[in-house]
Amino acid sequence: MAQPVAVSLTPLLKDELDIVIPTIRNLDFLEMWRPFFQPYHLIIVQDGDPSKTIKVPDGFDYELYNRNDINRILGPKASCISFKDSACRCFGYMVSKKKYIYTIDDDCFVANDPSGKPINALEQHIKNLLSPSTPFFFNTLYDPFREGADFVRGYPFSLREGAPTAASHGLWLNIPDYDAPTQLVKPLERNTRYVDMVLTIPKSTLFPMCGMNLAFDRELIGPAMYFGLMGDGQPIGRYDDMWAGWCSKVICDHLGLGIKTGLPYIFHSKASNPFVNLRKEYKGIFWQEEIIPFFQNAVIPKECTTVQKCYIELAKQVKEKLSKVDPYFDKLADAMVTWIQAWDELNPAVAAKSNGKA
Amino acid sequence: MAQPVAVSLTPLLKDELDIVIPTIRNLDFLEMWRPFFQPYHLIIVQDGDPSKTIKVPDGFDYELYNRNDINRILGPKASCISFKDSACRCFGYMVSKKKYIYTIDDDCFVANDPSGKPINALEQHIKNLLSPSTPFFFNTLYDPFREGADFVRGYPFSLREGAPTAASHGLWLNIPDYDAPTQLVKPLERNTRYVDMVLTIPKSTLFPMCGMNLAFDRELIGPAMYFGLMGDGQPIGRYDDMWAGWCSKVICDHLGLGIKTGLPYIFHSKASNPFVNLRKEYKGIFWQEEIIPFFQNAVIPKECTTVQKCYIELAKQVKEKLSKVDPYFDKLADAMVTWIQAWDELNPAVAAKSNGKA
Repeated sequence: MAQPVAVSLTPLLKDELDIVIPTIRNLDFLEMWRPFFQPYHLIIVQDGDPSKTIKVPDGFDYELYNRNDINRILGPKASCISFKDSACRCFGYMVSKKKYIYTIDDDCFVANDPSGKPINALEQHIKNLLSPSTPFFFNTLYDPFREGADFVRGYPFSLREGAPTAASHGLWLNIPDYDAPTQLVKPLERNTRYVDMVLTIPKSTLFPMCGMNLAFDRELIGPAMYFGLMGDGQPIGRYDDMWAGWCSKVICDHLGLGIKTGLPYIFHSKASNPFVNLRKEYKGIFWQEEIIPFFQNAVIPKECTTVQKCYIELAKQVKEKLSKVDPYFDKLADAMVTWIQAWDELNPAVAAKSNGKA
Repeated sequence: MAQPVAVSLTPLLKDELDIVIPTIRNLDFLEMWRPFFQPYHLIIVQDGDPSKTIKVPDGFDYELYNRNDINRILGPKASCISFKDSACRCFGYMVSKKKYIYTIDDDCFVANDPSGKPINALEQHIKNLLSPSTPFFFNTLYDPFREGADFVRGYPFSLREGAPTAASHGLWLNIPDYDAPTQLVKPLERNTRYVDMVLTIPKSTLFPMCGMNLAFDRELIGPAMYFGLMGDGQPIGRYDDMWAGWCSKVICDHLGLGIKTGLPYIFHSKASNPFVNLRKEYKGIFWQEEIIPFFQNAVIPKECTTVQKCYIELAKQVKEKLSKVDPYFDKLADAMVTWIQAWDELNPAVAAKSNGKA
């Protein structure tokens, strides 16, 4: 590898990372993750009926927020947090006091690598986050910072320091993350291909970011990881992570940060109902045809030197250019601004630090 | 897979593909490739002393060109073909009458996949070329046209037809394609990681294209696959394939074509001498720091609707903007124009067809 990644016997970043889990059910899935997750602090965001009790297996260190908590903590600004949708997870990003976040869905289990060894997904995400990205030029042997790899002939030496890594997007074995039409057409397709690779998504390239198995650096990109308005009372669902992915990629490109995708895999246990999904996605299938060119062409002015400033600027452009697609985007643009206000309220020190750094 | 790729029992594209091999020695390496290459026609370009006889194993159908042949066929335009450098291989691209080219170095052997099965590199390249690319948006499960894969949730439906694939860049197990400084620093590093993946290099992203294991569609991109002026009498070597890669990627981006990288692997048997390589690469290490921004910022006017027109335009820009780096680029820009003239002379029908198509 081009530069060594720190490895220690105590869990990496034990006191610097929170695991955020949105859920509507008892968290039995954590039993399988115990060897990997138990040293870390969990932030559980209860999605839906706050009167229901969520059971967390013994021995985990956690805080749990339900809708009543969100309303109490954010007051009127709670309107920016989705209700009855796993998009509510982004509240966990906001209340965390740590530098790093790992978020995972409660239907994701430990996958095995081709040798049969259980994959410590969190450890791989941390390796991805702690080593630089290479967004400015493609390396044909992929992540040059992995052991046994490096920059290939023809890779400019001036770019070999790389860029700070803001996010690490992990993948899924078994049930692939397909949209409803693809689920309907290919109900039996399973992802069985373990691709032993991490790569940086090149600058100016958008990708479909899935929130199922995702890690990021809150200080570098946190305020852009807003999962939008989905679920209860909204005309759309299942685009929460996509929205966060488009916004955060455009902002990373502007700020010179990298996003990696590839390893680690989790085992995605069950396909969600394609009929329900189709209803949620229906409008998004049309809207994304206009949203993606919008993000591909979005230009953030040089004066925007922090994630917050970039995000507010994007909110302005969403209002200007996407409201004509549907009035929903007008509401979403307002929620984006509210989100940043709430973020800065809960993170005064980080906001200041981030302002100072950029 | 999103769309089926034609598979037949007779070798794919048997009468539509030439294998181009630059060499200075007897082609014993072909014995290992016999099961995969024998059905195809070979074009051997003899690099160096034309009085030497190159032995080709029995049973292969081939034509062989040495320097005398090149001089005879191209006359004064032979000046654009490098001498005493494997860059001369591009003469083979020019004299071919087929739609597809596969080019491979004579120190590349058959690699095995993780199950121990010999990899038919050519077959994988053909699959890559015959299925579309996805340069406009990144698919997190990589090539959606491979079996068991598809476009993931959030991939715009309007982009799922993809773009025609112009080139397929294969990789190398064992000796990685490192530059001289990296070879010197890591003499023992071997590539042992088999990454079971093909992906499209996104639009607007440059990559270091290696000529060791490369296939392309002559009709779509052939005239851009010029390997420049290297070797005898030139101040630089080992940038022939890089040059072709930068030019062809910029032109593919302009024309809406895709380039894939990843599978197939070949087994690269021996590292070239890093001291010799350093002497060849020395100037390139400095020059690439200016060449890459040049290509990253190159804009080809809309009127350039054929590869030839794009290439002539690039030659003009090279002369304008890179001659100040070194007078070599002035000479190279002239050679680029000569190359296109020679190409069109040898390929009148294809030139017309390509002009008509665009």
